[in-house]
Amino acid sequence: MADDKKLVESITSRDVDFAQWYTDIVKKAELVEYSGIKGCMIIRPAGYAIWENIQKELDARFKETGVENVYMPMFIPESLLTKEKDHVEGFAPECAWVTVGGSEKLQERLAVRPTSETLFCDFYSRIVESYRDLPKLYNQWCSVVRWEKTTRPFLRSAEFLWQEGHTIHATAEEAEARTIQMLNLYAKFCEEVLAIPLVKGRKTDKEKFAGAEATYTIEALMHDGKALQSGTSHNFGDGFAHAFDMTFTDKDNKIKYVHQTSWGMSTRIIGAIIMVHGDDDGLVLPPHIAPTQAVIIPIMQKKEGVLEKCEEIRKRLAGIKIEAFHDEKIRVKTDDSDKTPGWKFSEQEMRGIPIRIEIGPKDIEKNQCVIVRRDTREKIVVSLDEIETKATEILVSIQNDMLARAKAHMAAHTYEATEWEDFKEKADTKPGFIKAMWCGELDCELKVKEEAGLTSRCMPFEQETISDKCICCGKPAKKLVYWGKAY
Amino acid sequence: MADDKKLVESITSRDVDFAQWYTDIVKKAELVEYSGIKGCMIIRPAGYAIWENIQKELDARFKETGVENVYMPMFIPESLLTKEKDHVEGFAPECAWVTVGGSEKLQERLAVRPTSETLFCDFYSRIVESYRDLPKLYNQWCSVVRWEKTTRPFLRSAEFLWQEGHTIHATAEEAEARTIQMLNLYAKFCEEVLAIPLVKGRKTDKEKFAGAEATYTIEALMHDGKALQSGTSHNFGDGFAHAFDMTFTDKDNKIKYVHQTSWGMSTRIIGAIIMVHGDDDGLVLPPHIAPTQAVIIPIMQKKEGVLEKCEEIRKRLAGIKIEAFHDEKIRVKTDDSDKTPGWKFSEQEMRGIPIRIEIGPKDIEKNQCVIVRRDTREKIVVSLDEIETKATEILVSIQNDMLARAKAHMAAHTYEATEWEDFKEKADTKPGFIKAMWCGELDCELKVKEEAGLTSRCMPFEQETISDKCICCGKPAKKLVYWGKAY
Repeated sequence: MADDKKLVESITSRDVDFAQWYTDIVKKAELVEYSGIKGCMIIRPAGYAIWENIQKELDARFKETGVENVYMPMFIPESLLTKEKDHVEGFAPECAWVTVGGSEKLQERLAVRPTSETLFCDFYSRIVESYRDLPKLYNQWCSVVRWEKTTRPFLRSAEFLWQEGHTIHATAEEAEARTIQMLNLYAKFCEEVLAIPLVKGRKTDKEKFAGAEATYTIEALMHDGKALQSGTSHNFGDGFAHAFDMTFTDKDNKIKYVHQTSWGMSTRIIGAIIMVHGDDDGLVLPPHIAPTQAVIIPIMQKKEGVLEKCEEIRKRLAGIKIEAFHDEKIRVKTDDSDKTPGWKFSEQEMRGIPIRIEIGPKDIEKNQCVIVRRDTREKIVVSLDEIETKATEILVSIQNDMLARAKAHMAAHTYEATEWEDFKEKADTKPGFIKAMWCGELDCELKVKEEAGLTSRCMPFEQETISDKCICCGKPAKKLVYWGKAY
Repeated sequence: MADDKKLVESITSRDVDFAQWYTDIVKKAELVEYSGIKGCMIIRPAGYAIWENIQKELDARFKETGVENVYMPMFIPESLLTKEKDHVEGFAPECAWVTVGGSEKLQERLAVRPTSETLFCDFYSRIVESYRDLPKLYNQWCSVVRWEKTTRPFLRSAEFLWQEGHTIHATAEEAEARTIQMLNLYAKFCEEVLAIPLVKGRKTDKEKFAGAEATYTIEALMHDGKALQSGTSHNFGDGFAHAFDMTFTDKDNKIKYVHQTSWGMSTRIIGAIIMVHGDDDGLVLPPHIAPTQAVIIPIMQKKEGVLEKCEEIRKRLAGIKIEAFHDEKIRVKTDDSDKTPGWKFSEQEMRGIPIRIEIGPKDIEKNQCVIVRRDTREKIVVSLDEIETKATEILVSIQNDMLARAKAHMAAHTYEATEWEDFKEKADTKPGFIKAMWCGELDCELKVKEEAGLTSRCMPFEQETISDKCICCGKPAKKLVYWGKAY
């Protein structure tokens, strides 16, 4: 068995070096391979299959709310990108620029899209005339480029995959409602499908998106106590509408400016799945999103009847729909390769496959199998007559238990502080969220960053008053803020 | 009704000016909007939904053959692109080059991928060690950029969407089998789903892909008699393997080079759907791929009970699965906007929705509705009791009839020539494919192009001997070739 453990032994322990543990998992679970291009990653089948499942789930939820998909060019002429002042200041410094096309120098540089607000604005300004054309609820799935100096797989890379929704509306109220609707959709998706609990709230002005009037965010807490911004939804008001002349004739026959939103979720969320659920043996995938939910591992597979029984069980399971996972059929495989069972166990663990089903000659004699849960390692002896219902129950339990554990972890790592010294001490010694009051001034936000090393993650929708004074300056408090260190 | 015809009247007739007709449809059916970026198009919801359906169908078929999806970086360093000599000569002249990242000039230029063979080669060379790692059957869905001077929506654009499959194998036989397997998969998909018949064959050396040993193609015939290369599959042999040092240790413990394939289909195929099936009233979509398969149009919708009945019928139809279309449920909508019925009829025709279902007070009285086929304009009175079975039957008939008509059109526009003068006359006067024998020499191929204006579309798999002499030089013939004008 010594050899069988090789896969596992080469992972750094999560508690010894979290960053290295993360890198090890990403590599060993074959999610990503580094490419020769600085800051660009290759997403391998095991990683891309997770993204495909995320896309499928999110896309269906978008469409239920009336969203339609489109595809915009990947290039943005410099003159277009610079039309909205705040926006260009935010993005121009991190653009990749195309300056040569074919063998000719271009007259105007083209940015590889870092985000597509400007393209959608230009498009909308040309296709919208009257209130009858509103709202437009468009989304696209694509890759974007932001020239980052330091990069980490999924979390920060020069190119990444995402979806970006861009909507325009006749009224400010409707735009605000859509902004909140999409944030709630993200949060629900993360909880239900990825088993990741979140804090929902609004970003401070300092942290909001370049050009937005308001940015809303969902913040998740990783196992190491750092926060990860997992999805954002922006209300632009009519700022871009003025810059791009996006007007329409309203019912009252007056020309008005549209109100606009955008919202996005990216492959970054795969980093969250890893860092919320993973352990020292590798990835732990929530069953709802796992590309393979169950792997059948034959024991003594050369013995007569073993592989046949495995195939019979695989077929039976593959026909079962799980209601809790949108009636999708169980995704099950048999590993009949010539590796040892021990090696296969390690692989199942490293790849985070929610359950493995061990079937050997003795099991077959007893008309049973052993189901091993990836999350708890619990071994459950199951009668083969009941395999369909038991496997379903166990998968659903894993999903629920993973969410419950992640919630408990977040609760246990969410602190409060009402005094500056206590706040600073907690910031130093207690990785997690710290809830504390804030006066609303940029100066205090900057001081918290400088002296306590924390940034404001969000002003949560669920406001409380835990003190009437700003944690930093002691002046009257306006908002409760979640502070933390972030990826 | 005069106003209702506006949508339709502004389309150029297909027989008067095919190119303008195409452009009109693309615009009026809202498939595409021109962007401000030269050669780049915006794919609007009606166009993108077709692509989504194509993706879904093709992707499922790929996966059935063991293909897995990945994502590679969009940038290729110049040094990587230039590793294989033929390949770089083919693609370097039409690359878009990133030369600035952030505010710094890059030390090495990066091409925005025109195709990703070089990236896959580099990747494979690093992850493959032994025969156990083979085959690798990877595919990606992405956009690529080729700096084109003249562009047309879907047919030729600087950026387009596609899938590119890249596989490596232990033996030459296995690579060749995969190349042919994927070409057959494309052909079957086009016939079954898009109702487009094809000629399958091999490209001449002149027309093959840069760096390939053999290129296979499916060629479709458009309504105007021009050919469209609709999908290609390439066998690279071990050429790239040598350039990129892609080796593996085989079972006999010897180090060997892998054998490689690639194959792709792009948004170009949407151009084929338009040009094979469209007519003077607009788009005609095959039901299997149509984003909306049926639109219910209420007549006198303000009369009591009309909209209610429409909603009842919509719900009933939306629950019906069509076996011939992979058991997918009928995609049906009601158009209850405040436009006139006549306007809605024109819109349904322009957008190519396969059937419309008209329901008014008189129909309701008689417990019936009128189904109008988009392809033939046939009006069919259907009892509401039978609406599910009748709508299903009609949709399946449309799909079959569209394929039959396209086949008949291709047959009627496929000619033979055994004499040079006859060949040239047909090339001048008979738009379509001309079957003629060829000696295999480049000189003759060039002369056919120069003097008859035709290119070799392919050497069909189904070879015949219609003469023993080359159509051009009269020397002994080696191959039957389909010649034509192409998009």
